[in-house]
This record gives sequence, structure tokens and C-alpha cells, in this order.
Amino acid sequence: MAPPEDQLEQVKDESAVAASSHSPADDRPVSTIVFVIAMQTEALPLGNKFQLVEDVDPPFPKGVPWVRYYGNYKDLEMNIVCPGKDAVLGVDSVGTISSSLLTYASIQALKPDLIINAGTAGGFKAKGASIGDVFIASHAAFHDRRIPIPVFDLYGVGLRQAFPTPNLLKELNLKVGKLSTGDSLDMSPVDESSITANDATVKDMEGAAIAYVSDLLKVPAIFLKAVTDIVDGDKPTAEEFLQNLAAVAAALDEAATQIVDFISGKSLSEL
Amino acid sequence: MAPPEDQLEQVKDESAVAASSHSPADDRPVSTIVFVIAMQTEALPLGNKFQLVEDVDPPFPKGVPWVRYYGNYKDLEMNIVCPGKDAVLGVDSVGTISSSLLTYASIQALKPDLIINAGTAGGFKAKGASIGDVFIASHAAFHDRRIPIPVFDLYGVGLRQAFPTPNLLKELNLKVGKLSTGDSLDMSPVDESSITANDATVKDMEGAAIAYVSDLLKVPAIFLKAVTDIVDGDKPTAEEFLQNLAAVAAALDEAATQIVDFISGKSLSEL
Repeated sequence: MAPPEDQLEQVKDESAVAASSHSPADDRPVSTIVFVIAMQTEALPLGNKFQLVEDVDPPFPKGVPWVRYYGNYKDLEMNIVCPGKDAVLGVDSVGTISSSLLTYASIQALKPDLIINAGTAGGFKAKGASIGDVFIASHAAFHDRRIPIPVFDLYGVGLRQAFPTPNLLKELNLKVGKLSTGDSLDMSPVDESSITANDATVKDMEGAAIAYVSDLLKVPAIFLKAVTDIVDGDKPTAEEFLQNLAAVAAALDEAATQIVDFISGKSLSEL
Repeated sequence: MAPPEDQLEQVKDESAVAASSHSPADDRPVSTIVFVIAMQTEALPLGNKFQLVEDVDPPFPKGVPWVRYYGNYKDLEMNIVCPGKDAVLGVDSVGTISSSLLTYASIQALKPDLIINAGTAGGFKAKGASIGDVFIASHAAFHDRRIPIPVFDLYGVGLRQAFPTPNLLKELNLKVGKLSTGDSLDMSPVDESSITANDATVKDMEGAAIAYVSDLLKVPAIFLKAVTDIVDGDKPTAEEFLQNLAAVAAALDEAATQIVDFISGKSLSEL
């Protein structure tokens, strides 16, 4: 199992489905960014950092709990969208379905040049992850969509390459690893096999779904994942996650700000 | 474990989140129906039966593989939508994410009075299911979204009641059972525990996701599931599924036609 720094090479892996190919838009400066963030606890400090305000009439259908924060930061039109609180249960609408819908609706309404999915994740210490690490995902794939019929099996795994950002990675010295996504916070034995097959360093509940929607609508997407818990450690995930959430969210915000500062004034092809 | 006929009572279960409450629209005749069908093999014969034509310029974003068949059947504006073939892999875009996006976009564009999710499913013989049976789901829930944090656990399960259709059930003598949804065709041991907890008679890969989106946008939804394979039997699911797909699709089309004929001229509150 390769340490994260070796995985830089894998960003160039041509076997994966590229999230986006080169287009003329790649050469003008990035103008509009949409951050997709599943939990509002993670989104609020970042929104404050960029001095964004909540959109009281967001461009979403009536009745959905989706939230948009927006504003100008440097030369960028910044948006943070969150799937919001479940109307009946009051918890953040985490997971692949809400994030897919929100990403779809945000791309339709806001026409971003770039999607950034930022959030917390479980990390594998065997792959070099520690609590508080912030990773850029080179690839995203699913670990809970097993369809044992030829070709459908590949569709289920849904491996996609993130938009490659070699200069950003070099400049900010971020860790790089593969991301595996599933709708459960825990990890069953079959999930574990799939995560190993996906060669994942980090595990989340949204990334591969956001990669799917971004690819479908041809918008480049990058994935920023901060480690709140060690999956292959000895502490229960839910407990470790809740303990570290606030501190790790701060590290995530710091990295997100560095990334946005780096992007400002640059075109996609310069990232 | 109750036989399916006893589960009729459970349609009235108030503990589930109702997909829709009574509104004035319930009292005028149903006008627009959208069938959401994951596999085109299942959709085409039904489209032919209703003499629908393919929309060459469907009301969906450029580049998505989603397909719409439409036309008038009796007094109804009929639509069948399918997530279509994956652009790279060429297989039907099965599973919760594609169906969620398609249901969302179809509700936005077509403003249906009723969503009907029709498709094949695995059945549990211990709950009274046999190959070729067509079930109406009383409820839909997820079996692969385990989030062991209080309240988040309920969000993960995502139990929703289907739109209640007591008269339709009585008239057509359809079997009734609970539906459990997950993104895998197979069933892992942890999936099995969750399916048992969901008290499910049938298992599919889309229903609870379509229930989620329909509930989010307040459109009544019903779920018609034809059994292609016995999950608690001795044949491998993938093999049994492929063997029975064509024959069971015919039974599904027959039931779908009976249901549409029953709906024609009736209001939602008469179903």
C-alpha cells in the first residue's frame, strides 16, 4: 500500500473516467465556485471567513431545505450550498442522494466553473491518514453499490478522476489520496473489501455522488476531505467523529481558504 | 411474519412519514402521470402499450442520458422516464442517485399529479413473495444507509409511506408489502439485518430514493414492484434476475396498465 505522496502520480491515471476534458473555458480565470458541504457545522465558519450571506430566496424549488450562502471574495463569485436539515427529523441531510440533488440544482442555477466538495471523512492509518489531515482526492468511487453483472459492476463502483490540480497540490503541499463513498457512517466487512479494492485513503458519504453529477453535467470538481476519525483504529467511528468534528472543521476551513486564495485570478488549466 | 394480505392494514400506519397529505388537488381527476422506470427493457413494452413516443428534445439538461416517452392515453397525460444508458459504460443507470435526479428533474419539468415507480425487485419467500408476483409497496425504506448516531439513524433508514390507494388495491387485488431499497443487487449480512428490520417483502434499487424526492417536492408516489428473483431462495440473484427479466416485465406491464386504467377519470382521493 503506497504512502499518500506516491499517489500524486495516480492523479494522471488515464484508466479513470476524467471528470472533465479541456475546453476553452479552461483558459479564462475561474469566476464562479460552488462549495458543496453536507453539514452546516462545517459550512458556517467557512461562510464567515469569506463573508458570505445566506440567500433568503435561494434558486431552489419551494419546500426543499437546501441552503445557499453567497458573496464576492477577491475576484470570485463564491457560493456554499448545503443540503440543510431534514424537514421532519431536523438533522443534516447527509449522504449521496441529497448531495446529488443539491449539486444538480446548483449547477443548473449557478453555472459554476468549479465544484468543490469539502467535508469531513474517515481516514485509514494504514494508508497514511491521521486525525486532522486534509486530503485532496485524486479519485472518487463508491463502496456500497455492488452489482455483480459484467459492466454493471463497473457502473456500481463509479470510479471517477477528480479535476487534476497539479500546481495547487505542489503549492499547498496537500496530501493526496483516493476517496471511497458510501451512505453508511460505519463500515461493514463487505464495505471494507470494496474500500480496499478502491485503494482508498479516505472514506466519506457524498464525494463519488458529487463526482457523478459533476461529470454528468460536465463541470470540473475537486474534493477536499478532512479526517475526523481513523476507520482502521480502535475507537468507534461515531464517537470519534463527534469528538473531533469542531477542531477538524477548522483545519478544513483553513485548507479551503488556501485553495480559494490560490484559485483566485487563475484559469482551470493553471490549477 | 405476516402474509402480504395482512399488510393492507399497514398502509394506514401513521407512524411513517406520509408521502403527501390531503390537498385540493386530491379532488380533481388525475391529469399527468410520470412513470419512473430504471431499466429501458422494462419501460419499452409499457411505452408501446400506451402508444407513447420518445421525446426527441426532452426537458432535461444537455448531455444527460435520461429518456422520456410521452403521449395521451385515455384522459391522461402519460410520461415514462428512464435514467438511460451510462454514457461511458452503456448500461442502464440503475440505483438511487440516477433515479433521484431523474425524479427531481421530471417533477420540475412535467409537474405530475402522481409518480409511479415501476420495476423489478427481489422478493422474500418467507414473506409470501413468488417469482412473477406484482406488489404495491405500502412503505419504502433504505437498508444500506447505516448512521449509528441518534436521529441520524432514522434519517438513514428514511422510512416513507407510499400514497395510500385502498380502492385500487381492493379493485385490482394486488399484493401489498413493504419495500426496502439499496444500491447493491446482492444482499450482504448487514443488509439482510436492515431488510429484516424494515419488515420488507420486496427489495429494489430505487424505490426509497424516489419516495424521498417525491416527498421533498410533495408529489404523491406509488411503487409497483414485480418479483424477478427470490432473495431468500437458493439461486444466485444475478442469474435468476437475468433469466426472469423478460417474463416478469410482461407481468409488470399488465399490472401497470390495469392501474392506469383504474386511475383514469378518478381523483387522487378516490384511489
